Amino acid sequence: MNKALPLSKVYQLLEPGPVVLLTTAVKGRPNVMTLSWHMMVEFVPPLVACVVSNRDFSFAALKTTKECVIAVPSVGLARKVVKIGNCSGRDIEKFEKFKLTALPAERVRPPLVAECFANLECAVIDTQFVKKYNLFILEVLAAWVDPAQRNPRTIHHRGYGRFVVDGATIRLKSRMK
Amino acid sequence: MNKALPLSKVYQLLEPGPVVLLTTAVKGRPNVMTLSWHMMVEFVPPLVACVVSNRDFSFAALKTTKECVIAVPSVGLARKVVKIGNCSGRDIEKFEKFKLTALPAERVRPPLVAECFANLECAVIDTQFVKKYNLFILEVLAAWVDPAQRNPRTIHHRGYGRFVVDGATIRLKSRMK
Repeated sequence: MNKALPLSKVYQLLEPGPVVLLTTAVKGRPNVMTLSWHMMVEFVPPLVACVVSNRDFSFAALKTTKECVIAVPSVGLARKVVKIGNCSGRDIEKFEKFKLTALPAERVRPPLVAECFANLECAVIDTQFVKKYNLFILEVLAAWVDPAQRNPRTIHHRGYGRFVVDGATIRLKSRMK
Repeated sequence: MNKALPLSKVYQLLEPGPVVLLTTAVKGRPNVMTLSWHMMVEFVPPLVACVVSNRDFSFAALKTTKECVIAVPSVGLARKVVKIGNCSGRDIEKFEKFKLTALPAERVRPPLVAECFANLECAVIDTQFVKKYNLFILEVLAAWVDPAQRNPRTIHHRGYGRFVVDGATIRLKSRMK
């Protein structure tokens, strides 16, 4: 179902700033949170910085297991994505509650989310900024896209339940990657 | 012209992942670059992480002066924004060449960009990750918006000259800020 994406193209998924899901797994129990504080740090190997609050249940999982999957949902999942962000894995088995399909990843234990159009298997490679800023540095080890989801439109968080959906794509002469 | 924006609202500008301009100033000479590797790190005081490559002319300015302005352009400036990213302040007086209006900032020496709908005056507060990742931690000291630009649509970089423009805004029941 999923097709491998060259690691050199991973930045094209995250650089536009979509709301994403982040999965973790502790002792075989998967969890998922909603996240939009992330950015690219390096093209290849793709490094990603993200901020996961120490108030979030996923924080300890990320810090101790040093693994996660970043899954990119399209606008069709927006309602679910927001609900996932409104509750905690402390109380709820989110994969069950939200009828998400957990697929085994290849390089890490946290699952891929089948409903998302892209999934990035990540290892935490630097925790030096965790104490000060809750900032994790991740390396993307493997990337997958779902070819069945064509031209997915992502959502971007604007605060207090407002999200902007991808509109038109424009092309301009750029020398930048 | 510009109206002060409460610092608690700054994340609403950057969290959606827009392409931004970053201005610096060395010995009174302003420069500007295009940037989209940035993310929010804290709400209040607003902290922002950004990656500025050590190959960029702005890198040394940011590292030594420890000041910058993040200016958020709307889609009307897209062509100019890309051209700004295609050349270097080593060779060009970008404010002149691109007919940008430099406005004095209140708290820092780099200028605001009058044509942008939002401007964030920033101090570099942490350079610990600069050597390893070219990653700067900024604190936003003052924020300005141009009330004349209503519902500005931002652009998001997808790589190789492709940019997605903000489309519709949707509202969902969220407990998140």
